[in-house]
Order: sequence, then structure tokens, then C-alpha cells
Amino acid sequence: MAGSSFGTLFKLSTFGESHGVSMGGIIDGCPSGISLDIAQIQADLNKRKPGQNNLVSERKESDEIQILSGLFEGKTTGTPIGFTIQNKDHLSADYSHLKEAYRPSHADFTYEKKYGIRDYRGGGRSSARETVCRVVAGSIAKQILNKLGVQFSTYVKQIGGIELSSNVFFKQDAIEASLLRCPDPSISEQMESAILECKAEGDTLGGIIQCVIVGVPAGLGEPVFDKLHADLGKAMLSINAVKGFEYGSGFSSVKMKGSEHNDSFESSGATKTNFSGGVQGGISNGMPIVFRVAFKPVATLMKSQETINNKGEEILLEGKGRHDVCVVPRAVPIVEAMAALTILDHYLRQKANQL
Amino acid sequence: MAGSSFGTLFKLSTFGESHGVSMGGIIDGCPSGISLDIAQIQADLNKRKPGQNNLVSERKESDEIQILSGLFEGKTTGTPIGFTIQNKDHLSADYSHLKEAYRPSHADFTYEKKYGIRDYRGGGRSSARETVCRVVAGSIAKQILNKLGVQFSTYVKQIGGIELSSNVFFKQDAIEASLLRCPDPSISEQMESAILECKAEGDTLGGIIQCVIVGVPAGLGEPVFDKLHADLGKAMLSINAVKGFEYGSGFSSVKMKGSEHNDSFESSGATKTNFSGGVQGGISNGMPIVFRVAFKPVATLMKSQETINNKGEEILLEGKGRHDVCVVPRAVPIVEAMAALTILDHYLRQKANQL
Amino acid sequence: MAGSSFGTLFKLSTFGESHGVSMGGIIDGCPSGISLDIAQIQADLNKRKPGQNNLVSERKESDEIQILSGLFEGKTTGTPIGFTIQNKDHLSADYSHLKEAYRPSHADFTYEKKYGIRDYRGGGRSSARETVCRVVAGSIAKQILNKLGVQFSTYVKQIGGIELSSNVFFKQDAIEASLLRCPDPSISEQMESAILECKAEGDTLGGIIQCVIVGVPAGLGEPVFDKLHADLGKAMLSINAVKGFEYGSGFSSVKMKGSEHNDSFESSGATKTNFSGGVQGGISNGMPIVFRVAFKPVATLMKSQETINNKGEEILLEGKGRHDVCVVPRAVPIVEAMAALTILDHYLRQKANQL
Amino acid sequence: MAGSSFGTLFKLSTFGESHGVSMGGIIDGCPSGISLDIAQIQADLNKRKPGQNNLVSERKESDEIQILSGLFEGKTTGTPIGFTIQNKDHLSADYSHLKEAYRPSHADFTYEKKYGIRDYRGGGRSSARETVCRVVAGSIAKQILNKLGVQFSTYVKQIGGIELSSNVFFKQDAIEASLLRCPDPSISEQMESAILECKAEGDTLGGIIQCVIVGVPAGLGEPVFDKLHADLGKAMLSINAVKGFEYGSGFSSVKMKGSEHNDSFESSGATKTNFSGGVQGGISNGMPIVFRVAFKPVATLMKSQETINNKGEEILLEGKGRHDVCVVPRAVPIVEAMAALTILDHYLRQKANQL
Repeated sequence: MAGSSFGTLFKLSTFGESHGVSMGGIIDGCPSGISLDIAQIQADLNKRKPGQNNLVSERKESDEIQILSGLFEGKTTGTPIGFTIQNKDHLSADYSHLKEAYRPSHADFTYEKKYGIRDYRGGGRSSARETVCRVVAGSIAKQILNKLGVQFSTYVKQIGGIELSSNVFFKQDAIEASLLRCPDPSISEQMESAILECKAEGDTLGGIIQCVIVGVPAGLGEPVFDKLHADLGKAMLSINAVKGFEYGSGFSSVKMKGSEHNDSFESSGATKTNFSGGVQGGISNGMPIVFRVAFKPVATLMKSQETINNKGEEILLEGKGRHDVCVVPRAVPIVEAMAALTILDHYLRQKANQL
Repeated sequence: MAGSSFGTLFKLSTFGESHGVSMGGIIDGCPSGISLDIAQIQADLNKRKPGQNNLVSERKESDEIQILSGLFEGKTTGTPIGFTIQNKDHLSADYSHLKEAYRPSHADFTYEKKYGIRDYRGGGRSSARETVCRVVAGSIAKQILNKLGVQFSTYVKQIGGIELSSNVFFKQDAIEASLLRCPDPSISEQMESAILECKAEGDTLGGIIQCVIVGVPAGLGEPVFDKLHADLGKAMLSINAVKGFEYGSGFSSVKMKGSEHNDSFESSGATKTNFSGGVQGGISNGMPIVFRVAFKPVATLMKSQETINNKGEEILLEGKGRHDVCVVPRAVPIVEAMAALTILDHYLRQKANQL
Repeated sequence: MAGSSFGTLFKLSTFGESHGVSMGGIIDGCPSGISLDIAQIQADLNKRKPGQNNLVSERKESDEIQILSGLFEGKTTGTPIGFTIQNKDHLSADYSHLKEAYRPSHADFTYEKKYGIRDYRGGGRSSARETVCRVVAGSIAKQILNKLGVQFSTYVKQIGGIELSSNVFFKQDAIEASLLRCPDPSISEQMESAILECKAEGDTLGGIIQCVIVGVPAGLGEPVFDKLHADLGKAMLSINAVKGFEYGSGFSSVKMKGSEHNDSFESSGATKTNFSGGVQGGISNGMPIVFRVAFKPVATLMKSQETINNKGEEILLEGKGRHDVCVVPRAVPIVEAMAALTILDHYLRQKANQL
Repeated sequence: MAGSSFGTLFKLSTFGESHGVSMGGIIDGCPSGISLDIAQIQADLNKRKPGQNNLVSERKESDEIQILSGLFEGKTTGTPIGFTIQNKDHLSADYSHLKEAYRPSHADFTYEKKYGIRDYRGGGRSSARETVCRVVAGSIAKQILNKLGVQFSTYVKQIGGIELSSNVFFKQDAIEASLLRCPDPSISEQMESAILECKAEGDTLGGIIQCVIVGVPAGLGEPVFDKLHADLGKAMLSINAVKGFEYGSGFSSVKMKGSEHNDSFESSGATKTNFSGGVQGGISNGMPIVFRVAFKPVATLMKSQETINNKGEEILLEGKGRHDVCVVPRAVPIVEAMAALTILDHYLRQKANQL
């Protein structure tokens, strides 16, 4: 059953395989009369694309956005925004060795079991290239939310064993000053070393991204199933390589007592602490929304691995191509995009709750 | 906007407030011709209800299921299954002191901000009493999945700082032998002591529930947004007091290298390790599905707390009533129910992918 | 797949079979803070129920609404409104002769083909008794719309060959003054005669209901698929026994030329004629919305009919019970209810189109 | 709110304005492993396009389909099928005179009221050019249904006052032998004369399309709201210029008595008559599905019309451009496409009703 749409009132549907003609999508339900900054969408796409520096994949993808509909004289018309991003700079020949192979911890095996057929070129639909469409839609959502006073701070909190222990809102400048999007320069440096060391081994690393959102009004989230953090969690877990999601105190709340964990109110309605992560009972409370997303280490190694093919025969899979040692820095705009889609969708949903 | 439905093909919609006339729901899309065991539904409800022993709330709720439609001569007819559970044994007078108070880390403040009105009796719709309907529907889903060879093992993995370090499938007997649904007797005892100690302090504890599902066929999950683990994550995060979700290696994957984390295939298609937690690329791979859910400590304390009322005035909130020190053992059937709803929905969705 | 929900933001889900324990439903997404008049809901239910006079079925059903949730101190809270209507005054024994029979132009055959099982008592889920839940939800929608200035005029336009040739808005008084809900007394009388004559023959009649809605603001309807009249059409066609739907000029437009059919504008934006029926390009234009719904003659006859049973054997079906000669007058509140559900849903949807 | 998607399991989402960069869409939920004949899609598009002969618009649009994803080595992969059709041969300058005008019985006024902004070039999103995407998706659905034994016969039944009085299944050859897609040569000739006469007057005509579908298995349709004919009705009413829908006996049933109208069963389960139009209780019964769709006369005239502009001033609108006198023949592939989308969606939905 169809699973390529996200959102209810601000709804993104996407298509595209890694080596197909193009990626693309439709944003349906975008409010009308909004001036969109296309250059800003392109800037967000550029944060995601490979080839940014020697710490990430050196593949070159231009990832140029083309808007096909829904804009008139620079403004949204309320009709669906269609867009494509062409697939270039890919050589399909690169992937013929994967035609029958099931790469470990990739989706080759499961796609073939599910559909009985598989586009093996570069992972096909299961490739993280798909997320390029999320960044486009998320960038549009973010522009709208910015006008409403909502601001995002999304950054790398951990790579491998190296961690930034902070939950605060860092400015874009501080984040983008780091090649790895970790706003603490000294920790960013340690992360760089870890990545270069791991790269030399032909191995890969995982990490954690943290997102802090300020300016979200109280009242967003639709109990009992479409709680704000539940939809944020689904949004994040739908991103390639994500293994876990937590908000506010998250898993660490387990070791706290209720008397430590409860967020006391100030008379303004703000809370003195924010273990709730900006969400109480599934509804935003006006405090910063804070969550973390765990990414597993990249499954594609530059080392040989034993695996099987679709006949069940053991084969040796050689590491080749230009792959990321660690995708986490490039996943920052994806996390932010999915957060923006979720928040804007709930913003519009809340408009229907009071006449 | 409507947020009280879960699922697409096997769809649960619920209603009910803690102190309203009754809780209830509709299951739409239940396949026809299935013999349902009502006693089994009641047994699952009994696992969730308060008053089971002195470790959980001593409130008495009978929680009797009444099926109103969708069954004929003991079998499902394919038409919607309506059901109610009456609200009894509640004294509304108990809650008059909450009329204007915003309890810390409860949803009083956010419901009032969202809707401009609030049923303050026992939390109203935000009460975990709502989950009684999830257990009913999940129990029905589980009965159907059992016939398809799917089995669940859901248990308490951690309470406060005391942890069971195992990811295996425990049998129901072993789980139910523990008052706390922790299948290791010695750890269960330590947990009991921790709860009783905390109860004496008037304080509360959180914990982690682990769910292991075997027999799920390969192929369930709908990329790119409705990935199996993304929908499981949303299902879990929608449960009251949940702060985090992870599957397979989860957050611990962050410190692993790709070469350690990749699950090698056996020639059968099974994997030697299961860091993937039974899901690759958002689609089940036939291995056990394994995930964990973090619950914060209960927000209602038996201690006095300072807070504010809806005029922004500081007030003192006294601890009273019969509340759980730790809800995690009673949340086991809820986690299992939401897992069953998610798996069955995806089982039906997968039927539409190949003619 | 689940088909028992209607609407997107104001969403009704229903359950119940003719001879089950009860009918019922959930309204999810009702805006908060609205005072509901329960007596008015009961009054709408009474318009639908059998036994009103000797022109319709003389079965007695009390059809008493019970609200189970979503209301607090007389106002909607924004949480789902659960409700039931008990099934009384039915004798299941009445229907044992239908256990194996496929009644002509009923749904016995198709339900059994679809589900492989059938609740044969009084038609089970396929009985028009199901519409009782639509009337409840529609009555609530209508109360909200009334506060927004929207008014409905729904009446019988035709029974058999006798027709009221008018498209105007008749007041409730004029409609309810007629036992048949036809606001022209002389035509109503002719219809009465036709029904009594047909009743004597043991035969049945169909008819047409017209609905005129004034006060709908311009801008409702969501192209390109969820056009306002498309959703109205689906709403009407989902009612038992409906065979056709047309709005504005409808089928008669086919014989008109464009120059006759185009609605010229007045400088106010109103149109001089209203062949558009209040909808242009799928969006309301502020003019009265006008549509008509065709009902086939009742399939249950008081005459014997030849038919088959579920073994393919020919059997004789005897006419018995207390059935309507013509359901059209009792369908008036159902048509109005479905119209109100559609209009309110689109009213809420339109709120999301401009920030 | 988003209204540009149709279907639940086989889901089409579309975008595009008449004079934007391109039209396009996504088909999500297409079963995998199906060989698609792209030439057949193009052939269906060609039936819809203007410029086919002197009886329809002489505008030239090449309407070339480009598939962007979801196909691999000629077969569907189960992933979303993205496609575009470029907008060519349009001169935006043609439409500057419409910038401020509200054309009578067009959607100019309502789009501006709804969205506060309007792409006035050629009607923008409200143009029937949008239906090009429906034809693409419908053609794919039809190819799948053909493999399942379902066949469509869609033809012009009436233009203006000239009518073909038949409800039978005509073969494609007979339909396509007529420039107007009316399978009776002598009636087709009368229709041609009527169109040419009307063209000379600068006026326009409406008509009725009939669709007969054979081979639909019993059991499709999801009561109580998503009845098969209700979804067919919505599908048809969502097409530009449609004013009415009826199935089986339709509006004419109103004048029949129940004893005349009931369809008697043969022992096979087939019915002797088919007033039900292949649907009983909202579920297909295995008989031919028969329905009719009424189209109003084209709103764009080659005559001058008085109207208003967006300042409320009266203006004279001159007839110019190359427009259809009667769109009904070109709407035949659109009606068939929407029927195929509806039937295939329900075919997949029915797969989820029995395990």
C-alpha cells in the first residue's frame, strides 16, 4: 500500500530512485499567497548533497531544484507544488556487481522479498538519495514557519564516541562554521579526527543529531494517536539509517524520580526545567521542542564483506565507490526538513480545532 | 484535526474520558470469518487494569469489555466492531481540587491552551485510561496474528536503575510469573524493592519495556515514510508517558563501527546477528523484531508540589488518591497491543503490493 | 478495507447492525467550546424514525441518543464524541426466513460474496438503520453551521410520477407541515394518495429529495478531486437506495446551450441565474447550493417474489413485516445530515488554505 | 487542505496548471512486477488531446508522457511512478485579457475567493488540462484491470438533444469509428451536424457519457461510506464540467414501482435485469457496471458576453481562441480513466477483507 506521502494538511508525496530519470515530489496543501525564496531551497539542498568536503562522500551531485507548478509571480497559489531534481553524474555501470548481491544491513534483501523485483542500481528507491525531496519540501515549510516566528537549530551532537553535552539552541552560523555541523569547535575537531581515522580503516561511523525548535506556539499536536512527539518520532524514524528517537529527557528519564523529572511552572506558564522537551500530553507547551535522533554507522564499507546473493550462494562483496564514512552531518538538513514538515502540518491542523 | 484513529486498513478509532460515561472504540477493517475469543480480550484488559497488587495503583476498575457489533455467531463479519468499557468506581468529587490547577508535567496546561476548555476530572481525555481501548483492539489484532504464526514477548526490561540485560524472547509464563512482568526472578525482586522504597517516599519511577516479535514474515513495511519501524515508533510514542523509542541496536549503534554493526547473512537469508532488529530499509526481514520503549517516571506524586492555576497564581498541589508508583508493568499489555495493531495493519497493506 | 468513516477534519466513524446490541459512532475533530442542544439531535432522529404515521413503516423504534464522551458541562471539549443508539423493539425471530435467502435488489448476495459470512437479521450492516448514526453527526454539524449562518432546506421533490417543480428554499415549517415533507400542500396530498394506492397493491415507490443550502461562504471545496459537489455527491450516493445525484442544472444542462447556461455575474459577484447550483470549478461561490438525490423504489415488497437461496435454489419469498412503501420522506433528515457533514468538513478544510 | 489525491491503495496525486512548466503526477501503490505498455498510455492520451479533428478544439498539444520512476526494465517495481507531461504550444500572451476578468460559469471568481490569488493563464489549475494526468494513471490502472479480465466500454450517449438509447457494451472499434465516440453511425452523424451548427453560432453543447464495465468480480465496494458507486460518483463529479451522475436505472428509477425495479436472480447468481447497474448495497454483484455522467455545455463561448472584473466593474468579454464546441467526445478517455482508478483501488481494498 502507498507509503510515499507524509502529512495530512501540508502533504508531501515523493517519487524517484537513485538512478532513475529524476527524483521529485508534490506538496499539496501549501497555503496560498506566500513568497518563496527558491535560492534558500537550493541552499538547503546544498547542505545535504555529497561532495561538500573530504569528510563526506566525494561524489558530485548538482541537485538542482526545478519547480513545475503551484507558484505564480513568485507566490504560492494554494495549488500543488510539483518539483523535480534530475539524477546526474551517476554511472549505472558502477552497480552491475550488485545485481544479484544482498548487501549486509541494506534493503536489497527486503525489497526483493516485498516486491519480487528490485531496481539494484545504487539501492534504487531505498537509497538515501530519496531524502532530497524531503529537503525541498522541508525548506518550504521552514520558510513558512520562519514567518510565523518558529526557528530551528539542528546540529550534530555525537559521532561515534565523541559527544557534545548540551541541549541549547545554537545559531546557524555556529553550526555551519563546522564542516561536521557540530557547533562546538573543539568537539568538531575531535569528530573530524575520528572520521579520518575511520576512513583510513575503510570503516564507518554513526552519530546523533539534536534538534531544538523555538517559537512553536502552545497547542500543537492531536491526541491521542497523532501526538506532536509521536509524529515527530515517525518523521525521524522514516529517515534512512535512523535507529532511535527520544525527546526531552528521553531514555535518561528512566533513571530519574518523578520529583526530579516534573517540570515546575513559572507563573507565566513557562516551565523552570524542560524535561518535557516542549511537549506535554502530546501537545506543545510553548517551551523549546528538543529531540535527538540516532543514526547507525553507514552500511556500505570500503572493506570486503562476505554476504549472499539472491540464489543463497555465499559471495564476497568488495568495497568500492565514493561513499560517506559518516552521513550524520549531511543528515542535519534532512532532520530539520522532517521536523519542519511535522510542525507546519500540526500548525495547520490546530487551525481546525476552534471555530 | 481528528487524531483519534490509528492504522489504515485495520483501523482503530477511540473515544472516552477518564470520568465520562464510558470509554469505547471502533475497529474498522477487521477481516471477516475469524473466531474471536472474548475471554482472551478480557484477560489482556485485566493485565492493564489497576488494583492488581500492592505494587501498582490500588484503584479498582472492572474494565469489562462489551462488544456492540461486527460479530455474528462468534465470528467477525468484516463490518466494524464497536465496543465500550464502562467507567465505574470513580468518584468525580475526588478531582474538584484540580479544576483550576495545572499539574506539573501533566497535560492540563496544554489541553486548555489547545482547546480553550478542559474536562479536569482525572485528566479527562489525557488520562492513560484511554489506553483501555488500545488493549481491546490490540488483543483482537494479536488473536489474528497468532493464527498467522506471529508471537509476542513483551516485558519490563528496566525500572529506575535496575535493568535486565537481555534481548531474547521470553515466554508468557515467565513474564506473568513476575508481578512486575520482568521475566528474571532475581531482577524482578530488586525492582519490587525499588518500587516499595520509592512508594514510601511518595515518589515515582520510570522504566523501559522491551518487545520481541517472532514469526513476522519478510516484506512488511511501506517505504519511504510508512516504514515498519517508523509506524511502530509512532505507535509507541503515542502511549502516555513514553519519552523514547529505539529498535535493534538503537542508540547504542552510535558507538559501533559499520564493520561491527552490519548483520551478515546466512545462506538461508537469516542474519547471524540482529542489530537491524528485524527491519532493514523499513521492511521486515523475517528475523525477530526487537524494540524498546522508555517511560518517564509517573507525574502524579504522593508529595506536595508547588504549581500554578489557570490564573497564573502559585498554588500548592497536595498528593492524594491511589496512584501508581510505576506504571511500566501495567503498560506491558499496551505496548503489545500497539505493536499488534501496527504489525497487522502492515500485514494487510502488504497484501495489496502484488496482484 | 475500512469504509465506515466519512470526512477528513470533521470525521464520523460508525458501527452497528440492524439487530446487533446497538448502533453508534464517533465524531472526531469537532471544534471545542460549542454548546450542543441534545434535544435538537433527538428531534432530527425522530424525523428519521419509522412509525411516524401510516404513510411510512409502522415499526416502533425509540432511537434514543446517548452521548458517551466529548461533552463537558454542555460544551464540546474538542475530544471525540462517542455515542450509541440502542437497538430495541426488534424480534430477531422475524428474520429466520432470510437466513439463506438472497432478497432481490438487496445486499444479501453481495455481502456474502464479499465477506463470506453475513448477519442476515434484518439486513445486518446493510440495513438503512445504519443511517441513524449519520443523523446524529449531521445534526451536530448542522448546529455548528447554523451558528456560522448556514441554513438548510431539504424536502421531497418527487414521489413516483408526482413532482414539485421548484428549486427554492422552503422554510422548515412548510416542510414539516407535510407528513411527506413536501412543502406544497396540494402536491403533498397527491403524493399521499399515490402512496396509499401503492400500499394497497403491496408495492413500493421511489422519489427525489432536493436540498437547498444558503449562507455557505464562497471558497469551500478542494480541487481537483475533492471538489465540493464531488464530496456532496459521494455523501449522497453512500445513502441506502440512492441511484443518482445532480446539482444545479444537473442532467437538464445537457440540452441547454452554453449561452443559455452560463450564469452572468452581478457587480456584487452574485450571479443572475444559478445553473451552477452554488458551485463553480468545485468551489462554492456564495450562491445557494442546490442538489437533487434520486431514490429507487423500496426493494422489500409486501408481495411474494421468486428468488434464490445461497445454494442457488429457487425459492419463494413472502412479503411480511412492517416496511415502508416509500422511504423518501424519512430520508430527508439523512440527506440533510450528510450535506451538513460535507459542508462543515470543507469549512474546516478551507481554514487551512490561508495562514 | 490538500485535495489533489485520489484513491487509497492505488493512489494518484497530481499537479500542474494549464500554462505552468508541466503537468504531472505520482501513482503510489501500483502493484509490482507488471509490464506496462507505454505506447498504450500515449494512445489514451491522444484520445483526450485537442486538435483531433474539426469537431473539437483545433489547438495542438503533443501531450507526451514521460515516466520518471517506478519502472525497471519495463516492469513496475512497486515504488511510486512519477510522470510529467510538458506544457507546449501555449502562448501566455493569449490570456492577458483574462487577468482581471471573471468569466461566467468558470472558476475564476471562486479560485480568487478561495486562495486570494489566481494564476489566470488559461484557467491555471482549474483548466481541464489537469485531466491529462488522470488519463495517464487511468491507462495504467486499465492495463492492470485488463489482465484481471475487466473490460471497459465508454462512449458518448447524448449530445445536446440527440441521444443513443442503449445501455449495452460497445466494442472499442465501434466507438473509435466515430469522430464523436458515439458507436451508432447514424446518431453520430446527427451529433456532428448539431455540433457544426452550434459552432457556426459561436455557441456550445453538453452531453452524456455512458460507461459499461464487464468482468468486475462480485465483492468490490466498502460500505457504508465507500460504496463502489459512491466512489465512482465522486470520481466522475470531480471531472471538469460534470453536473450529474447516475448508475443502473438512475433517475428513471423514481417512476418505477418496486415490483418492476427489483432484479430477479437466476440460479447462477446473475440477475435477469440490471436496474442495479452492477452494484447492490454498494458492492459489485458481478453484473456489468453501468453508469452515466452529464456534462454541461462548455462555458467558453465564441460570442461576446457581459461579465465583471475583480473590481466589480462590468466588462465585455470577447470570444476568442480555439475552443471546443463540445468537450464530451474528448472526455470519454477521462471518464474511463477515473472509472479504472476507482475499480482498481477497490479491487486492492477487497484483498484486505479476507485473510
